[in-house]
Amino acid sequence: MIWNTNLRWRLPVACLLLEVALIALFGVFVRYDMDADPHWVQEKVIKNLSTDLENEFYYRYPSFQDVHVMIFVGFGFLMTFLQRYGYSSVGFNFLAAFGIQWALLMQGWLQSFDGRYILVDLENLINADFCVGSVCVAFGAVLGKVSPVQLLIMTLFQVTLFSINEYILLNLLEVKDSGGSMTIHAFGAYFGLTVAWILYRPNLHLSKERQSSTYHSDLFAMIGTLFLWMYWPSFNSAISNHGDAQHRAAINTYCSLAACVLTSVALSSALHRKGKLDMVHIQNATLAGGVGLGTVAELMVLPFGSLIIGFVCGIVSTLGFVYLTPFLESRLHIQDTCGVHNLHGIPGIIGGIAGAVTASIANIDLYGEEGLAYAFGIERSKLNWSPNMQGRFQAAGLFVSLAMALVGGVIVGVILRLPFWGQAPDENCFEDAVYWEIPKEPKSTALRSEDSSIKPPEP
Amino acid sequence: MIWNTNLRWRLPVACLLLEVALIALFGVFVRYDMDADPHWVQEKVIKNLSTDLENEFYYRYPSFQDVHVMIFVGFGFLMTFLQRYGYSSVGFNFLAAFGIQWALLMQGWLQSFDGRYILVDLENLINADFCVGSVCVAFGAVLGKVSPVQLLIMTLFQVTLFSINEYILLNLLEVKDSGGSMTIHAFGAYFGLTVAWILYRPNLHLSKERQSSTYHSDLFAMIGTLFLWMYWPSFNSAISNHGDAQHRAAINTYCSLAACVLTSVALSSALHRKGKLDMVHIQNATLAGGVGLGTVAELMVLPFGSLIIGFVCGIVSTLGFVYLTPFLESRLHIQDTCGVHNLHGIPGIIGGIAGAVTASIANIDLYGEEGLAYAFGIERSKLNWSPNMQGRFQAAGLFVSLAMALVGGVIVGVILRLPFWGQAPDENCFEDAVYWEIPKEPKSTALRSEDSSIKPPEP
Amino acid sequence: MIWNTNLRWRLPVACLLLEVALIALFGVFVRYDMDADPHWVQEKVIKNLSTDLENEFYYRYPSFQDVHVMIFVGFGFLMTFLQRYGYSSVGFNFLAAFGIQWALLMQGWLQSFDGRYILVDLENLINADFCVGSVCVAFGAVLGKVSPVQLLIMTLFQVTLFSINEYILLNLLEVKDSGGSMTIHAFGAYFGLTVAWILYRPNLHLSKERQSSTYHSDLFAMIGTLFLWMYWPSFNSAISNHGDAQHRAAINTYCSLAACVLTSVALSSALHRKGKLDMVHIQNATLAGGVGLGTVAELMVLPFGSLIIGFVCGIVSTLGFVYLTPFLESRLHIQDTCGVHNLHGIPGIIGGIAGAVTASIANIDLYGEEGLAYAFGIERSKLNWSPNMQGRFQAAGLFVSLAMALVGGVIVGVILRLPFWGQAPDENCFEDAVYWEIPKEPKSTALRSEDSSIKPPEP
Repeated sequence: MIWNTNLRWRLPVACLLLEVALIALFGVFVRYDMDADPHWVQEKVIKNLSTDLENEFYYRYPSFQDVHVMIFVGFGFLMTFLQRYGYSSVGFNFLAAFGIQWALLMQGWLQSFDGRYILVDLENLINADFCVGSVCVAFGAVLGKVSPVQLLIMTLFQVTLFSINEYILLNLLEVKDSGGSMTIHAFGAYFGLTVAWILYRPNLHLSKERQSSTYHSDLFAMIGTLFLWMYWPSFNSAISNHGDAQHRAAINTYCSLAACVLTSVALSSALHRKGKLDMVHIQNATLAGGVGLGTVAELMVLPFGSLIIGFVCGIVSTLGFVYLTPFLESRLHIQDTCGVHNLHGIPGIIGGIAGAVTASIANIDLYGEEGLAYAFGIERSKLNWSPNMQGRFQAAGLFVSLAMALVGGVIVGVILRLPFWGQAPDENCFEDAVYWEIPKEPKSTALRSEDSSIKPPEP
Repeated sequence: MIWNTNLRWRLPVACLLLEVALIALFGVFVRYDMDADPHWVQEKVIKNLSTDLENEFYYRYPSFQDVHVMIFVGFGFLMTFLQRYGYSSVGFNFLAAFGIQWALLMQGWLQSFDGRYILVDLENLINADFCVGSVCVAFGAVLGKVSPVQLLIMTLFQVTLFSINEYILLNLLEVKDSGGSMTIHAFGAYFGLTVAWILYRPNLHLSKERQSSTYHSDLFAMIGTLFLWMYWPSFNSAISNHGDAQHRAAINTYCSLAACVLTSVALSSALHRKGKLDMVHIQNATLAGGVGLGTVAELMVLPFGSLIIGFVCGIVSTLGFVYLTPFLESRLHIQDTCGVHNLHGIPGIIGGIAGAVTASIANIDLYGEEGLAYAFGIERSKLNWSPNMQGRFQAAGLFVSLAMALVGGVIVGVILRLPFWGQAPDENCFEDAVYWEIPKEPKSTALRSEDSSIKPPEP
Repeated sequence: MIWNTNLRWRLPVACLLLEVALIALFGVFVRYDMDADPHWVQEKVIKNLSTDLENEFYYRYPSFQDVHVMIFVGFGFLMTFLQRYGYSSVGFNFLAAFGIQWALLMQGWLQSFDGRYILVDLENLINADFCVGSVCVAFGAVLGKVSPVQLLIMTLFQVTLFSINEYILLNLLEVKDSGGSMTIHAFGAYFGLTVAWILYRPNLHLSKERQSSTYHSDLFAMIGTLFLWMYWPSFNSAISNHGDAQHRAAINTYCSLAACVLTSVALSSALHRKGKLDMVHIQNATLAGGVGLGTVAELMVLPFGSLIIGFVCGIVSTLGFVYLTPFLESRLHIQDTCGVHNLHGIPGIIGGIAGAVTASIANIDLYGEEGLAYAFGIERSKLNWSPNMQGRFQAAGLFVSLAMALVGGVIVGVILRLPFWGQAPDENCFEDAVYWEIPKEPKSTALRSEDSSIKPPEP
């Protein structure tokens, strides 16, 4: 197929129309929550708060900034491993800036609406970043094969579906999922994989040569990996309850990720005939422990439980890269560019299951009476709450997320198959030059290390 | 002209003399503010503070570190886009370390002097970083054309002028400018552009080939862009009032920057004949929304107002890169290496104007009575304060900043034109090898991917 | 010598066995400290804490994340300066993930053991990162010459010795060392140098060509440098006392590092015959001010004292790179790949001495009565405490650290000399391809900047 990849009018019009619509909706609906409103000075007196520090800002701001780095530098640079797709990886990932605005509205209407206005504070910003994180995950599955216009359309729909799914899980099923194993990772991965399945390109081998990395592109990708890895404790604790829950979530995630590095390295070496390590595994599988811990992060999984989850995720994820990704492509016709199935899909499911198990064995010995009530929000409405029931709702949440992802992915995939979104032909996939002005390489690729090229200075 | 670029004695002597002078001045003048002094243990009792958290450290430390990253990684890597000037971009930008020490003194004398000592706490460090941020902006205008000795001299003078201008704005005119649209960005940009104008090099085309980027240098620059973009909410909120003001400034900046990405992408594509994106715009114009929001960040501009500012800044900035930068060079003889006029100059003016307008429509409905007093510091002295008056003072602040920048830029430019500062001749501009020992490129530029080069291991 | 570098079974088995052992030990020993336990809800009531913010999490979380970045991105990327060893630099440094788990146990048994369980909170995570920081320092000395299996063994032993040394210094000698000049930097450097001495390779010149950098590898290394430099204030203040001590440690470190940049630049230029700067110095010596301030960070060294320490460290460190490193290699047969002796060794000793001096001149004028008691923990047990005595204990701490490093380094070095750990032969040192699957370079190294390679789109 020959498509027109000149986006001169489609991309600008899409961006400007969306932004104008967002401004109008923000004008009608979005106001500051009390903690960000000048009336907070009075509120402090009314609520008898002893200090400005009680403003939600100080509880969550460091975590917010870390999450922000994960979304834009973490995901953006993780995808720069492709040799000729670095501009698109960080540049199109930057379009997540559209997603966070739309997420503020969608999540706002569903969760922060006071009947007239959406009242936003820092927690809304974190949740918007989380929501867009699931778009970044899905983007990994279709990386190199979609145009920025398609990405904007996918973002529009995925944010909408994410918000609905999240509402079902958190508000109706009342599941725990502070780090989003189910809502962010499993949902994002299976949504993206379904889209990739619909967009299957049988002749993608025509751009096979560009699907690999170069030495330096792999180093750029490690910037993404490390910022994701280091800040994941913030990701999983960012919207946990104040106090011990945030603290515990950070410790658990730290442990899980540390274990995951060891098993990823072990499996990567064991699966290579000469025992060599593969950058793909180090860049991705080392992060699976953070995904797998997303649901249980603030629960009483104990440090050794976190290690076990990380241990398992590192193994399963590396195995997935070696055996499952080729299988998905050849048998199921799912071309998963970044292997999100291994990093977000399976570990997300592991996380969901771990959450169901951990919740179902919650008890007063472990949490204390008040601690249990606080952790699961029992006092609110759930008089007949039991750990067992919580566990079953957790499992239900996982299934709902997967179902939403598959159904939504099919619909969005079909829309994206329409031939006028500026997608590249098979032989030009994974190539920045399709959508970017590329600099000419200097004639001499080597920098002149001698001063010969430099006019001699005065003596 | 032939200049001597061997800095063997000039650079070391300049660095060592400056540092010795700084040490002497710090010895005479600089002490810890109460929050950083061991006597704080007693102060806590006297002030009846319930917790150590009331120490200013905990209100501002996360923002401080984010700002610190913006100055050194953000600005440093943003300028690495040039193909042969990466060492100088991050390395000379690192000389901002001189600027922060001098700024601690200058700002200290003007704002933290107790008659005998300058009392420093974390807020001073943030303000010193801010001050040096304006030097980094100006550096962008002259990048590639000045020696590190010239940069030190420019820093010395610019920090001095910045501090005086800031004192006039914040203490005499009592304007709001928490994110420094006027004091940092507009001042820094027009100061730097004026210096660039005085240092005009008619034969700069001789090093034209090195004024472009390479594929990987553009990726390095994106590291700078993203850290600036992500941490800008910290920049604009770092020295805001505790509580709702810091919170609001972060939300507003987040919104503005998100909108700015969309319009930058739109314009970049629309202005290319094949609809392709230009890395220069993505690296720079996407940040204009942060600059434009600097003055109003903590005011009641509302989320949709922030989006509008970001929307406008992204458009204006991208247009500037396409049409204004070539015009400035060809007609006004201003060679603006990084296009700081588009990223900091015009958006800084937009920010100043937005501040004047927003301040002049402040009212009790929007802020509440106490909120209004707190936001504008009315209780202090200003009995006859009115929003209208505030607006006019804001506008005056913008004009003062521009006037200081132009006059100061001319003076400093004339000093820097003296022929003995080690500047490079026109044909060697934008070239690291002038000031840096450059590694020899390996003979085979391609890494050997086969094991052929590796001694075979035992079987 | 011919060694077998195929790690197919050794590396996986080592990783998996270690991780299984860690999980078992965590299961038996590690639980949450009260601040991270759900019972904290009750504890708050018992301790009459007014707010959730009194949870230790909020005092230390931002510093923790900054330290985490320093260990994994800072040290990891700092070592990517080698032209063909970038994967190993960031990848093997990532194995610090093993070290932090083992450190949680070792430091836990010695310092957080309640008789039955190790109770971990955020401070334990910071301390584990600190401990592993000393391993990263030692890794710098042997970089390029050891296999990942050797690195795991070194980590196992060094973490053990570090924990014992730290226990002696902090708990028995009760020295101040908040930023670890002695426990982390001097110990890590001399441990690593001793190991490098034992592992001396007389024919290392066979891989001489790969011991230098390339243009882009030096830029990657600057990412490491800058994140270390920017976050060092967090490093030195992360475990200081709440309140003024943390605040003061951050200010002092900021000042010291700023001064250090100036003197590093000065000496780098002065020591080059053409006055050119050397990236090695800018990447490393600029950080020496943070190392040198580690012991005194929270003491009353005053800002100008911090500047002096930074001033001296920058000079000494740069001189070390120019004169001492070649001397160590040729005369003492110590091959110090990254020059850790100059960045961590000597500045660590300077820091230890500065600590002894600063402690011995502590007095009530400077600290106030309560401040002095709080700063040195006098109330606890030390009725006959005197500044002079503290100074002598500080000096003793430095000697103990050096002795432990030398003895431990010899033992570990001898173990690592055994021929079956998969180390590379001399001619293959500093080469990623020994342990990593390396991507094939694209046939045309230059990216095609023209669209010629792209199928023409429809008109």
